[in-house]
Amino acid sequence: MAKKKTKKTAKKPPVEKNPPKEDSSLVTFNISKESNFSEWFTKIVQTAELADMRYGVKGFLVYQPWSTIAIKKMFDLYEQELDDFGHNPVIFPMVIPESNFQIEADHVEGFTPEVFWVTTAGKGDILEERLALRPTSETAMYPLYSLWIRSWRDLPLKLYQSGSVFRYEGKSTRPFLRGREFIWIESHNVFATMDEAIAQTREDMQISFNVMNGRFGIPFIQFQRPEWDKFAGAVHTYAADTLMPDGRFLQLPSTHLLGDKFSKAFDINYMDDEGESHAAFQTCYGPAISRIFGGMIAVHGDDSGLIFPFEVAPIQLIIIPILAKKQATKVKAYAEELKSLAKAMGYRVHIDDSDRRPGDKYYFWEMKGVPLRLEIGRREAQEGKVTIFRRDTREKTLVTRSELKTTIQEMGANLDKSIKRRAQDFFDSRLSRADTLDELVEQIKARKMVKIPWCSIELDGEPCAEEIKDQLAGAEVRGIDVKEKEVPSKNEKCFICGKQAGCFVYVGKQY
Amino acid sequence: MAKKKTKKTAKKPPVEKNPPKEDSSLVTFNISKESNFSEWFTKIVQTAELADMRYGVKGFLVYQPWSTIAIKKMFDLYEQELDDFGHNPVIFPMVIPESNFQIEADHVEGFTPEVFWVTTAGKGDILEERLALRPTSETAMYPLYSLWIRSWRDLPLKLYQSGSVFRYEGKSTRPFLRGREFIWIESHNVFATMDEAIAQTREDMQISFNVMNGRFGIPFIQFQRPEWDKFAGAVHTYAADTLMPDGRFLQLPSTHLLGDKFSKAFDINYMDDEGESHAAFQTCYGPAISRIFGGMIAVHGDDSGLIFPFEVAPIQLIIIPILAKKQATKVKAYAEELKSLAKAMGYRVHIDDSDRRPGDKYYFWEMKGVPLRLEIGRREAQEGKVTIFRRDTREKTLVTRSELKTTIQEMGANLDKSIKRRAQDFFDSRLSRADTLDELVEQIKARKMVKIPWCSIELDGEPCAEEIKDQLAGAEVRGIDVKEKEVPSKNEKCFICGKQAGCFVYVGKQY
Repeated sequence: MAKKKTKKTAKKPPVEKNPPKEDSSLVTFNISKESNFSEWFTKIVQTAELADMRYGVKGFLVYQPWSTIAIKKMFDLYEQELDDFGHNPVIFPMVIPESNFQIEADHVEGFTPEVFWVTTAGKGDILEERLALRPTSETAMYPLYSLWIRSWRDLPLKLYQSGSVFRYEGKSTRPFLRGREFIWIESHNVFATMDEAIAQTREDMQISFNVMNGRFGIPFIQFQRPEWDKFAGAVHTYAADTLMPDGRFLQLPSTHLLGDKFSKAFDINYMDDEGESHAAFQTCYGPAISRIFGGMIAVHGDDSGLIFPFEVAPIQLIIIPILAKKQATKVKAYAEELKSLAKAMGYRVHIDDSDRRPGDKYYFWEMKGVPLRLEIGRREAQEGKVTIFRRDTREKTLVTRSELKTTIQEMGANLDKSIKRRAQDFFDSRLSRADTLDELVEQIKARKMVKIPWCSIELDGEPCAEEIKDQLAGAEVRGIDVKEKEVPSKNEKCFICGKQAGCFVYVGKQY
Repeated sequence: MAKKKTKKTAKKPPVEKNPPKEDSSLVTFNISKESNFSEWFTKIVQTAELADMRYGVKGFLVYQPWSTIAIKKMFDLYEQELDDFGHNPVIFPMVIPESNFQIEADHVEGFTPEVFWVTTAGKGDILEERLALRPTSETAMYPLYSLWIRSWRDLPLKLYQSGSVFRYEGKSTRPFLRGREFIWIESHNVFATMDEAIAQTREDMQISFNVMNGRFGIPFIQFQRPEWDKFAGAVHTYAADTLMPDGRFLQLPSTHLLGDKFSKAFDINYMDDEGESHAAFQTCYGPAISRIFGGMIAVHGDDSGLIFPFEVAPIQLIIIPILAKKQATKVKAYAEELKSLAKAMGYRVHIDDSDRRPGDKYYFWEMKGVPLRLEIGRREAQEGKVTIFRRDTREKTLVTRSELKTTIQEMGANLDKSIKRRAQDFFDSRLSRADTLDELVEQIKARKMVKIPWCSIELDGEPCAEEIKDQLAGAEVRGIDVKEKEVPSKNEKCFICGKQAGCFVYVGKQY
């Protein structure tokens, strides 16, 4: 039986497999994110071992530890925020009986093309009823809501669940950003009044802002989507769009005002205090954590690789002992001591004690996006100090052990603040405005998101939106910025139909 | 549009729906757990709103918040333990292409009868290849392991994932304990040597002990399963069995020594330091959190309802303000103050300020299994004190506000210790030993788990096990206690075949 030894092998790796870890130590990731985003993204997913695309079923991804740990942390932060706003977690089945799936007409029309069906089981039993792999859980949850809700006392009902959903997606898939299985949180809420439901969509947008911007540092605009681009079955859809480095929109969480469309279809009624029965009002909200993860790394990374926000980094502190022959034992012991110290402070910390050269380790962990690097050499060990390197600014700070706690805290917080600021600056630099169709064409070519006067986001505006798509190589009307204060003047017309503009919308290409 | 008011309605609830919350306040759960366990379990699942069985697809359960919050906490504790032992999380797809599923012969034979198949998608597309809803993930993960592992440097590989698995289970299903979808963690590990793989199965058993016994207070015996009762594809299976209150075994986590059976089938090879290629050795381990939850509430509950271990309770502290007319405002304010205090200490705390009578609230939260109740009346508010009630012993302690922190800590820890002790005592009281077949028959009737001398747990012992099953109304040979020190004497024979006993096994009925 073969024994594991620590000696290096000189054998060459067979070509069809990954290179062994030691040989791949010379990771000098260097791809221009802005001018070559597509390659940057594909390569960083592979090089940082975020995900493996070789599972063999189109659109189904294998998440490796480096992405999984961050994603779990992101779930924690998102769920905590939902809890704080009074939502409670539930777990519903992954499959939906076809008869339930069919209940709401718009919904079934919108989602049927995207459903995977479970039809058989065991050694050839045909199921009595087909089961949909849930593409979203309205039709799983609402039949139970109908049983749970009786009177106004049962309202509001604010529940969410975390898990996988499945969509038989026709478009080409990309790791994290678009797949046939993705992992998300979906929150489904019921209220006695439409006003409360509307207030919930605003709360959802606040939650998006608190978590996605506040914790993950992602800039975005919150749009009210045009009528022709709503969630299947919704009264209104509000969706947050961020920008990819190539200037394309990426849709992040959307919240949907369902009104009483689903409650009428699913018989979700409540009795008021006079004993009268009413259809309830509903909302749903769906942050797709896998996609937000993809957006987050795209937004924050640089040409040397990933940069994780401090709070969600799989490893927050990497300790690199620099072992000269003299005092190697002392340096090692000091590294262990600092690790224990940092661990006791609650940080995710790791020592790279592999036999690679320190410079190689630096490149490697920079590529992996670890926020802070603790360099420990003979001098540091002797003097009880440590050199801390910050991934985003590449600045080094020499501090004493007693300053470690405050310095890590500060540098972590400053990194978060600074990558958020940088992302926001880039985002803002991509916003522009056009006063004529020619200007719009030009700006779209320059990969901007362009604000223009627009006839209407009601259904009568759809032909103009189709026209835009045709003329501008797929550019789309994303909707009205919910914070928009500006009202079109009398001179402002829709570029396409020439009618008086009723609103301002943003136009851009979707990722 | 109806407004939500706080007045009570006099209307009667329609019969087909749940009674409204205020009307159900008189919860006096009172079912003998030991003499009527089946009813106890069914009723507590319903009354405590742990799960709803009305989803409409056999064996698929809706987990309500009261179970979901505890289950999430249980996942956290289990995952933390795995992390501490050097395992890393991953997320694999929920579906497995049929060609991968077919690779290991024993595995495919064992699991094929239990698989749900996805065959179509969208508006009638037939998938090129059928996709199995994963019943377990060996065949999902190992093709990737084959790509990831090249040399001894890539070993050991210790990965786990948390999520749903699906089994087209023929037996009748019970909430949490047996279903067609259940939620678990599965850990899949690869080593260079068989010795390391064997050591991993021992580590897995240690993890089971640390978490299930140490944190959840569940007593169990760790068995080596007989050859005829192994995981499909395993060399050996080790499984923890606890006891239900009716004296039946419930199987909890099992760990499987896979040897090189799967690695040979899936081409998981590594090169040693001489450049020679070897098949790797594997283990897998699968704690089913949903089932452990079911076992945990069955083990700890009493005739008045649930008792949660302090650490996993959805709410750890329930504050009941007793509002006499005088000083009601003061009592309310004091309740809020204590809540903030407890929250700042990191506890999950809730004030029941509904308009039910205090006595009703007591019963209700006792039934829900909240470990500690803080009673606050006029006297407490005036004197800055609080009466703490412990769910398991029903003892009340009056403490000052300044003693709150230590008292909660102590009472929580003591509750955990004491319910664990009680569970262990019950478990031990059900263990017995038989020296003749007649004694065995008698003891099994008395709902014991019985240790007997046995011919062999190799395949040649299977006919005797079948005979036991026939003669003892389904009683099963559970295997050898891995801690068993006793060796059968020469006089000890197998009760069935009369051959010299080779070991001692436990026999009992399975849940």
